[in-house]
This record gives sequence, C-alpha cells and structure tokens, in this order.
Amino acid sequence: MTSRQPHPVSLIGGGPGAWDLITVRGMHALQDAEVILADHLGPTAQLDKLCDISSKQLIDVSKLPYRRQTSQEKINHLLIEHAVAGRSVARLKGGDPYVFGRGFEEYQALLKAGIPVEVIPGVTSAVSVPALAGVPVTQRGVVHAFTVVSGHLPPRHPKSLVNWQALATSGATLSVIMGVKNARAIAQALQEGGLAPTTPVAIMQEGSLSEAREFRCELRDLGEVMAKHHIAPPAVYVIGAVVNL
Amino acid sequence: MTSRQPHPVSLIGGGPGAWDLITVRGMHALQDAEVILADHLGPTAQLDKLCDISSKQLIDVSKLPYRRQTSQEKINHLLIEHAVAGRSVARLKGGDPYVFGRGFEEYQALLKAGIPVEVIPGVTSAVSVPALAGVPVTQRGVVHAFTVVSGHLPPRHPKSLVNWQALATSGATLSVIMGVKNARAIAQALQEGGLAPTTPVAIMQEGSLSEAREFRCELRDLGEVMAKHHIAPPAVYVIGAVVNL
Repeated sequence: MTSRQPHPVSLIGGGPGAWDLITVRGMHALQDAEVILADHLGPTAQLDKLCDISSKQLIDVSKLPYRRQTSQEKINHLLIEHAVAGRSVARLKGGDPYVFGRGFEEYQALLKAGIPVEVIPGVTSAVSVPALAGVPVTQRGVVHAFTVVSGHLPPRHPKSLVNWQALATSGATLSVIMGVKNARAIAQALQEGGLAPTTPVAIMQEGSLSEAREFRCELRDLGEVMAKHHIAPPAVYVIGAVVNL
Repeated sequence: MTSRQPHPVSLIGGGPGAWDLITVRGMHALQDAEVILADHLGPTAQLDKLCDISSKQLIDVSKLPYRRQTSQEKINHLLIEHAVAGRSVARLKGGDPYVFGRGFEEYQALLKAGIPVEVIPGVTSAVSVPALAGVPVTQRGVVHAFTVVSGHLPPRHPKSLVNWQALATSGATLSVIMGVKNARAIAQALQEGGLAPTTPVAIMQEGSLSEAREFRCELRDLGEVMAKHHIAPPAVYVIGAVVNL
C-alpha cells in the first residue's frame, strides 16, 4: 500500500512489562499496525497476547544498557522510512513514552519529517512498580508530592540537571529509575542534603513480571544492599515514609 | 453467591478520562465484576464501552469538589459490605489509584477487614494530560526529573507537607494537580523560591476528553490566566522548560 499522506505513527507507552498493563488504546494501535518497532521493555515478550503478530513486521530496537545498541538516530530513521512507505507504524516503548526513554525526541523527528504522530500514554514503572509491591507514592497526611528522577548520571556530574540537595528537602517521595549504577552516590547526596539516613527505601527489580524481586532497607545502606543482591536494570527504588506504611 | 473467602477487590486506576486509556487488565477486572463503585473521574461516563453494564450494579461514589460528597468512610464501608457478601467488587478510580485520590486508604481499610485487594495501576493525568497536549514531562538534555504535586493546600498552610521553595530549585518539571483554587499562591511561592517569573506554564482542563481546553502563559501570570478563562477542575498545569519545546 502506498499513500501520499502517511498514516500517523503511534507512539505507545507499553507500561511496566506485564502484557495487560498496556492501555486499551495502545492495544488497538498495535492491532492496527503493519510494522511494530519495539524495545526490550514493555510488553514485547508477550506481544502475541495483544495482537496477531504473524501478520506484522516486528523490528527489535532494544537499547539494553551496556550492551548492543540501536542508536536513536537509527530508530528515528526506521520510523520515518516505514511511515513514508505508506505503512501503519507502531512504536512500542516501555512505561510512558515521555517519562525518560526519549519519546519526545522521536515525536520531534517525525514531525520534522512531516509525519503525524499519535501519542498514547502508558503506565509508568516509576509509580506502578511500587504500587504492585504495596508502596503508594502518595498518602493523605503523609506526603502530597512525588518526584520521578533519572539516576543515570551521578550527582555533581557535569551534565547532571538534578539538584539532589533540593530534592532531599522537598518533602516529596522520590522514585528513582535508571539509578542502579549510581545508587550509592545518590544516597550519599540525599543524606548530605538533609534526608535522614534512616529514611526507608524499597528496591524493586523487574517489578510487574513473575521474576520480580523486592528488598527494603534504610537510605544509608542503599548502595550496599543493591550490590549484595546484585540488583540489575530495570529497577526502581522509592525513598520516603510511604515505604513503611 | 456466598463464599467464606471474599473475592479480592480490584482497585483500578481508570486513567485520565477517555474510556480507552484504562489498562487491559483494568478492563478485564470491570468485565469480571458484579459491583462497580465509580468516581466521576476516569472512564465512568463511557463504562458501557468497556463492559456489559446491564449485568452489573453500579454505585456512584463521586466526590465532586465543593459539591455533594460521599465520605471516604462511607466508600470504605460499601466496599467491605459488598465484598463480605461474596460479590466480586471493582473500585474504579480516576488516574492511578495511588497518585492522590486516597487509594491506599481504601487498600488499608480492606486489608484491615480481612479482604484481599488487587491493585491495578493506571495512567496518571499528571503525565498523560500534558502528553496529549504535546508537553513531555522529561526531555534528554533539558530536564531529568519531574514532580507531581497536589495543590489542594496553599503554600504555608499549617497542614501543607510540600516545600515549594525546594521544588522551585530542584530542576524538576512540576506537574500540579488539584491546584486550580490555589494557583496564584503557588505561582507566588515558586517565584519567591527562585523560579523565574518567565518560566513557561501549560494549563490543561479535562485533558483527555473532547471538551479539553489548553492555555499557555508565564508563571507570573498563572493566577490571572486561570481566572480569566474560568479554569475549573479537573485541571493540570505543568511548569518548566518542557512547555516551550
């Protein structure tokens, strides 16, 4: 099929991993797609429960940390190439497209190429993974704000855009994603900012899947506990009084 | 039907309003339920697109701000009553159950009554409503954190648990929900905390529905713009550089 006006590309938040934590709108967009570009996060491993994959072209654009990479430029190029060819394209991402993960960069690249985009929000792991482990990010009378923060750069890194000292005093629950490698430095910066060393922390790996693991500790022990249990991405940790509710 | 062991109550995040922004798991729980207790938020108005409502008992537990109220105690009591009677109960909430909205209080009340609970995360309006309006809460190289904060108490209120001054310097995008009434005071506190008066703001009312409205302004004009356009709940406003991307 060819057409002068490309189909809109669906930029889909696939949720935290379990196949049925994608939205109904996201599922329908997958069913309508001819080409699906998928991450290793989100519901990719069980895509056959959401749509008839035998009739579709699947393209793996996984970006596993510290392993093989499909560059962002290459992903943008593939999205544009298939859309311009007149095919209906779904871009399936883990979590929500705009909670890190470069979703807006893909949106901008497509718009620049004259291709319309439909954004389909998703359930972010920063909130849902703690929820599935029994940890609410807010609770009336306890905490009225939460901050989702990327831990991929350590505090005081020249490219860091996060004021960890301010977050330590904000009164908000902290939900840290992509923070495995820098957990010790982040815990240190938060304590230097005034957060009590005894602040409770919940650590969750592969939160919505059957292989989920969870550990709890105090902030001062975060780095040690993560190392001892060989916590590996994808993982989330939540810091704040909500952990002990 | 009666049983000694009650069915688990499903505590479902219904998403920001559009019927198909609930998760697939949430839809299935609605389909399996005999009794549905629903808010006015979430997909309640179009519940018939998600399940056969003619076979179910629907209970409206809306808590419209400044209007009629079903007290939280009454909601907890209804949930327990129907579950103890052996019926399968779904509690449908707007957004995500644990992003404000007292979801965890219902969870605790049910557990205390010996009733198991299945939490089904949802798409939070704090992220999805801006996304649908073209505003990402994060962007690589621009901002690596976002804070979702309740504006239901004004800054410096004796019961406020939010350090607005710290949020002003944290470097995180701010997404304020339940902050219509206190918008002017919140904008003032953030500027006193050091956030530039020219920081861009996007205001979104009824974000995922056909009657959605959106306005943009600078932080210093937030209160005035909200009043001028008669912004009413439910509304979200996002403060930060992402608004101008």
